[in-house]
Amino acid sequence: MAKNKKSALTEKEGISISEITNISSIKNIKTKRKIQPSEQDLVSSILNKNITALSRAITLVESKNKKHQDKANTIIKQCLPHANKSIRIGITGVPGVGKSTFIETFGKHLTSLGRRIAVLAIDPSSSITKGSILGDKTRMESLAQDKNAFIRPSASGDSLGGVARKTRESIILCEAAGFNVILIETVGVGQSETTVYSMVDFFLLLKLAGAGDELQGIKRGIIEMADAIIINKADGDNLKPAKLAKAEFNRALHFYPEKASNWQPKVSICSALNNEGIDDIWDLILEYTTITNQNDFFYAKRNEQNKFWLIQTIENQLKSDFFNQKKIKTELKKQLQLIENNQTTAFAAAGYLLNLKD
Amino acid sequence: MAKNKKSALTEKEGISISEITNISSIKNIKTKRKIQPSEQDLVSSILNKNITALSRAITLVESKNKKHQDKANTIIKQCLPHANKSIRIGITGVPGVGKSTFIETFGKHLTSLGRRIAVLAIDPSSSITKGSILGDKTRMESLAQDKNAFIRPSASGDSLGGVARKTRESIILCEAAGFNVILIETVGVGQSETTVYSMVDFFLLLKLAGAGDELQGIKRGIIEMADAIIINKADGDNLKPAKLAKAEFNRALHFYPEKASNWQPKVSICSALNNEGIDDIWDLILEYTTITNQNDFFYAKRNEQNKFWLIQTIENQLKSDFFNQKKIKTELKKQLQLIENNQTTAFAAAGYLLNLKD
Repeated sequence: MAKNKKSALTEKEGISISEITNISSIKNIKTKRKIQPSEQDLVSSILNKNITALSRAITLVESKNKKHQDKANTIIKQCLPHANKSIRIGITGVPGVGKSTFIETFGKHLTSLGRRIAVLAIDPSSSITKGSILGDKTRMESLAQDKNAFIRPSASGDSLGGVARKTRESIILCEAAGFNVILIETVGVGQSETTVYSMVDFFLLLKLAGAGDELQGIKRGIIEMADAIIINKADGDNLKPAKLAKAEFNRALHFYPEKASNWQPKVSICSALNNEGIDDIWDLILEYTTITNQNDFFYAKRNEQNKFWLIQTIENQLKSDFFNQKKIKTELKKQLQLIENNQTTAFAAAGYLLNLKD
Repeated sequence: MAKNKKSALTEKEGISISEITNISSIKNIKTKRKIQPSEQDLVSSILNKNITALSRAITLVESKNKKHQDKANTIIKQCLPHANKSIRIGITGVPGVGKSTFIETFGKHLTSLGRRIAVLAIDPSSSITKGSILGDKTRMESLAQDKNAFIRPSASGDSLGGVARKTRESIILCEAAGFNVILIETVGVGQSETTVYSMVDFFLLLKLAGAGDELQGIKRGIIEMADAIIINKADGDNLKPAKLAKAEFNRALHFYPEKASNWQPKVSICSALNNEGIDDIWDLILEYTTITNQNDFFYAKRNEQNKFWLIQTIENQLKSDFFNQKKIKTELKKQLQLIENNQTTAFAAAGYLLNLKD
């Protein structure tokens, strides 16, 4: 993040150290590839729904190279007036719940209705393994071949915040390219669900029917975030348990406070494998958009999300600037030890550390 | 907060502007009052369970005068090794639930068992009205006269953070004065419950039996925080609805994820007015301390709370230093407008604002 800090504004500042160290690799690339299109070319092509241009622009967004980042910022800025015309849907669920199959079936249903869908992902584990939950497009083979669908693997990054930023910016590019349903998948590790929640209009939790005690083991806070709980694999012998699970979730939702959206979260069952119940889910989402457009919650939420990301980005930077100072790291440890030994209070320790600030 | 920043450490730094402006008022006080006891005198008296000394020390904690704050910090530091030997209990509930009567009856029960109890309060509204929820000791007349009870009205302050700090420091002083049960009351306005939660060992939610739909209207997140839900006024015609409410809350708690403490939150009914069910509540709290002492959660939680307050205090200071700069205030407004007009992204705006930093 620290590196990106100035990239939006300092195009004229000249070459940075990270660029110098990258010069040889850039040269290699240049000799192998043909000349890259200009920012203006990419923007025009994106607005003309050119998928290659969209992919290239997202690659620039994901690049660690400062020149690429500057290019990306120029492109995003020009795409912005054409973005925002979509519904953004977050999808979470534990591994094995059938997310890929669900997204494939759901996506195909949407394209059959004339929608254009983009599938993105937030995978915090990719920042460790440099792998990606959507890396293997064969997981959604049929959807991947649909010309009205665009599937992009999760960006990798050093932090969830970094990945989140790249995904947020990719959403803008996808929308400018005319994709009007954006699906954002997450495996739900760590804080990734909260991150996805803060960038979508509608949050969908996929579940399997279990042994009757459906809510045990659900991560704290997920139920509050969900606009719909979908019980997948409701087929064959699973149909009856799925219906029971639906009843139990409905009971549970009753115990949660009303949402600011005035939307009462819904529970639905489906079999993504057999394409059953998929149309109901889309109808439910449309119902949500109707209600929240009527009560102005839809755009109010997006505006709040933008503010949240603005403030969040600033706060994270302030914190990391402070806590990453070497002397603060050393002294923080000492102060924590003093607190544990009852030799100082949290407030006195905070005052001491703040006085050490550069 | 900004004013307090250096008070812990810079006793030798000489007179500050705020002191100069206060000199005349200090002089007035000095001519009217007799000579104040020294820090050392106050500490000795506090450790000897002298209530007048305790009250005086808390007044120093609450003072806005820098000399008083320095004195307070010296006293707190010397009291710290004698603190922490207590159980801290947070009590919340809407107005009308009978908090005062409950605290009075509960407090009398505890003193009858040989406990010494201190009652503090966090009232964020006091920062606006400069009033206080515990200002009127006649609300707890009998307890106020008990020599093993100490009741202190809520500190007033410009912010919840300021009030919280004063209360946290008062807890240390009360514990050093031998109070081994600390009750912290809150009316539950704004973030005050979260604040109390982050400084207590056990969090108690008082409720009334209603019309069967008990969870409607409960503030988001309260149920997750509660270690016990107590349905008060379970007497006369209210007894049956109270029992029904108990059953419903028990159902509801089942739908919440397990706590890190391994403690299963309990629901209990009582009539504080008739002194019925009060002993059960204390037994329940003792059971909690036994379990959490065995699994080491009790002191692990206090340690986490200390870290939380340390980090929180630093972060709040960093944020207020940044966002209170005049040019940041002006430019933030402009950037938010640009975001709303789709002319910039949250990330680009954040980068722009961070570059303006002093």
